Amino acid sequence: MEITHIEHLGIAVKSIEACLPYYEGVLGLTCYNIEVVEDQKVKTAFFQVGQTKIELLEPTSEESTIAKFIEKKGEGIHHIAFAVPSVGEALEEAASKGVQLIDKAPRKGAEGLDIAFLHPKSTCSVLTELCMKGKREE
Amino acid sequence: MEITHIEHLGIAVKSIEACLPYYEGVLGLTCYNIEVVEDQKVKTAFFQVGQTKIELLEPTSEESTIAKFIEKKGEGIHHIAFAVPSVGEALEEAASKGVQLIDKAPRKGAEGLDIAFLHPKSTCSVLTELCMKGKREE
Repeated sequence: MEITHIEHLGIAVKSIEACLPYYEGVLGLTCYNIEVVEDQKVKTAFFQVGQTKIELLEPTSEESTIAKFIEKKGEGIHHIAFAVPSVGEALEEAASKGVQLIDKAPRKGAEGLDIAFLHPKSTCSVLTELCMKGKREE
Repeated sequence: MEITHIEHLGIAVKSIEACLPYYEGVLGLTCYNIEVVEDQKVKTAFFQVGQTKIELLEPTSEESTIAKFIEKKGEGIHHIAFAVPSVGEALEEAASKGVQLIDKAPRKGAEGLDIAFLHPKSTCSVLTELCMKGKREE
């Protein structure tokens, strides 16, 4: 698989508002976008750090997978997303090597990019996203 | 604080050997170093992904903090390390803003670089390391 960099890290938090003073005031990062993703039942906040985005994920419902993650493991890093030139080809390769897929085909994620998740059972327990390399990063 | 990029991600695993087929065979990354860090009671394996290293951390003793992390939360992403020009200055700034420090002064980490950890109580629950920018990354 041809991975160019870590596209983003998803971090589960109970409250984005409560975390902004740390990310902006202490770390000195800039939150460049906050939006609600209705179908994922999350509010997201984005920060750029070098090649990689930090994506804070706040559940907007108790049924959100992020709410369940926080209940089970506490707040913390939820997933890692690798940038690849083609999510479809990367998925095919992973499947051919016996990796269990959460998404059997690419779907549209934030900023209209192709994304797909691999199952933690096949990734040494790290929830892993494959993400098309965006134009901004070329 | 002046953060240039994510220097590395530490990932707690039960067995590096068991994870190499995924990181090398599936993701296509190259493990460029494996070493035992006696005083941390861990074995580490390093992979470079763009600007960021992935550092697998396998406990070599049940008393290792990594063993305790795995027991409590399961395998997964253990900490994030941000590259800063001066760890000492970044620590001073963090302390002045009320961040609880694990290391009150920089200490030597892998590759002889200055490192220091911030306490998760002050970092929205993500164990956070500050790390001097290495020569290889300049």
